[in-house]
Amino acid sequence: MSVTRQLVLAQRPKGMVNESTCSLQEIPTPSPGAGEALVRVSHLSIDPTIRTWMDDAPGYLPAIALGGVIRSGGIGEVIESNNDAMPVGSTVFGMTGWQDYCIADSGFQVIPEGVDALLAINVMGVTGMTGYFGVVDVLKVQAGDVVVVSGAAGATGSIAGQVAKSLGASRVIGIAGGPEKCALLTEQVGFDAAIDYRAGSLAQQLRELAPDGIDAYFDNVGGEVLEACLANLKIGARIALCGAISTYNATQAPLGPSNYAMLIVKRAIMQGFLVLDYAPRFGEAQGALLELLLAGKLWHAEHLVSGLESAPEALNLLFTGGNTGKLVVTL
Amino acid sequence: MSVTRQLVLAQRPKGMVNESTCSLQEIPTPSPGAGEALVRVSHLSIDPTIRTWMDDAPGYLPAIALGGVIRSGGIGEVIESNNDAMPVGSTVFGMTGWQDYCIADSGFQVIPEGVDALLAINVMGVTGMTGYFGVVDVLKVQAGDVVVVSGAAGATGSIAGQVAKSLGASRVIGIAGGPEKCALLTEQVGFDAAIDYRAGSLAQQLRELAPDGIDAYFDNVGGEVLEACLANLKIGARIALCGAISTYNATQAPLGPSNYAMLIVKRAIMQGFLVLDYAPRFGEAQGALLELLLAGKLWHAEHLVSGLESAPEALNLLFTGGNTGKLVVTL
Repeated sequence: MSVTRQLVLAQRPKGMVNESTCSLQEIPTPSPGAGEALVRVSHLSIDPTIRTWMDDAPGYLPAIALGGVIRSGGIGEVIESNNDAMPVGSTVFGMTGWQDYCIADSGFQVIPEGVDALLAINVMGVTGMTGYFGVVDVLKVQAGDVVVVSGAAGATGSIAGQVAKSLGASRVIGIAGGPEKCALLTEQVGFDAAIDYRAGSLAQQLRELAPDGIDAYFDNVGGEVLEACLANLKIGARIALCGAISTYNATQAPLGPSNYAMLIVKRAIMQGFLVLDYAPRFGEAQGALLELLLAGKLWHAEHLVSGLESAPEALNLLFTGGNTGKLVVTL
Repeated sequence: MSVTRQLVLAQRPKGMVNESTCSLQEIPTPSPGAGEALVRVSHLSIDPTIRTWMDDAPGYLPAIALGGVIRSGGIGEVIESNNDAMPVGSTVFGMTGWQDYCIADSGFQVIPEGVDALLAINVMGVTGMTGYFGVVDVLKVQAGDVVVVSGAAGATGSIAGQVAKSLGASRVIGIAGGPEKCALLTEQVGFDAAIDYRAGSLAQQLRELAPDGIDAYFDNVGGEVLEACLANLKIGARIALCGAISTYNATQAPLGPSNYAMLIVKRAIMQGFLVLDYAPRFGEAQGALLELLLAGKLWHAEHLVSGLESAPEALNLLFTGGNTGKLVVTL
């Protein structure tokens, strides 16, 4: 009888995830019920939002229960099926959780043949969708706009910057940690400029690179980076709040942006969004991103970490800046 | 020869305005140049934004210079004119400053005969315009919305709440300081409910009055009130940032809203606005407000303080909650 290893939430983390946060348990591999399929999980999508689900705090989804499997997107192969839409042998995407096998319900989607799992989990997945809709729908980037993206060497940020460029942004500035990532952004990803947030005054560097101010800011990080952008808005600017990774491991209540009232001075909009709201329009985004990809205009990278037991450590890499591109755990 | 008394900025205030902030000086009353008029000022519009102009900080207008006349809206009578559009005897509105006489340029507007000065400075003036466009254009209040207004017993807030009600908001909740103002809001101004922010947990009271969350929040105050509203948003909510009076006298950098990331959780929009951007559409707002007024559906009040020398103390009333309705200094 097959065994399924699962990482469950043993203890809510204070700060970064550590060895006490998750525990590995084994259960008999479950059987799919009516309309369900059994999936052998091959890839886990490691996203910052997983860290927020570990806290007992209000969020867009309920907190992961103590003792519950860590919630996570993932990809796997159907090995047993009671659902004609997910035949045995097909590859599916859904909320697999951090485990070897999972039961797929109607919330799972079949990945078309010919689409590589890494492409499906990154550019064609929730990551790519987030970058696309944040730029197109929330920021409404127009030709000539000066656009800033934080977390720019991450999976979502790198796609957001490239989508902005494809829409005719006059200058796309990436904010990332360290000279290597900054070099990557300008030399390979197509950003016009990059700022190392660890080096010198961010607000000052932004002022130099965007002397007339920022039209649109894609915020993945919050904290001081958000404040620096608020201090450099153009009149009528837009800020898309995608995430706030600088705060997810905070052990004290995070500070809000002290200069949020610059939104009044600059008649600016700050708008939060969740990609799942755009699910009915994912096809539009996938088409647009595929077009860029085929034209050789969409750099992307996947940072692979091996083994289920590595997932908690992998999650931490998102917050220490240890990854470039999409972080994926392979099983 | 006539003398003009002026209140000039002697010292930038730290915290509330005090007796060292302004000094009274006398100059010979100036003569109007070509295209200008000389105005005897009768009413000063005392608005929170005046306090922000006293700081040497980035704003939508330059800071008042040290030694400069305190910038202020006001109303007066034309007593000498080189401009046919502003004949002698007409009443005009514009940036008079805190002084007995001022020179009116083309930025001044003639108030139509039959419109009382207090009506012109409140409902038909920038105050009314702010309440109207904040609710109609920024918040886009719809029938059935649950709307919250802070500073609700103030001039702008009371109009904002009544405009929201006129648009069919299902529940309009006012936040004000003290039981008297709260009683006024529900008994006379037409708010459905009122919360005394000094009594008990604001977030808790909001949760009780708006158990399904807030659709739209008109923010005059910032600080803890903004945080309490952020904690009670409905999905897709809108926040209009009109002002942040809780921070204008801060002696340390104010804290931002620590839970601003609720904008992500609730896919909500927070937008700053300045009424002057709507100047081309003031006629639309004046028409709508006049209609409400004639129908007996627009409560308004003016809080009068007498004498130029009282203007600094009057300004402080806005921050101590000492006024109800529009604060006006009469000369």
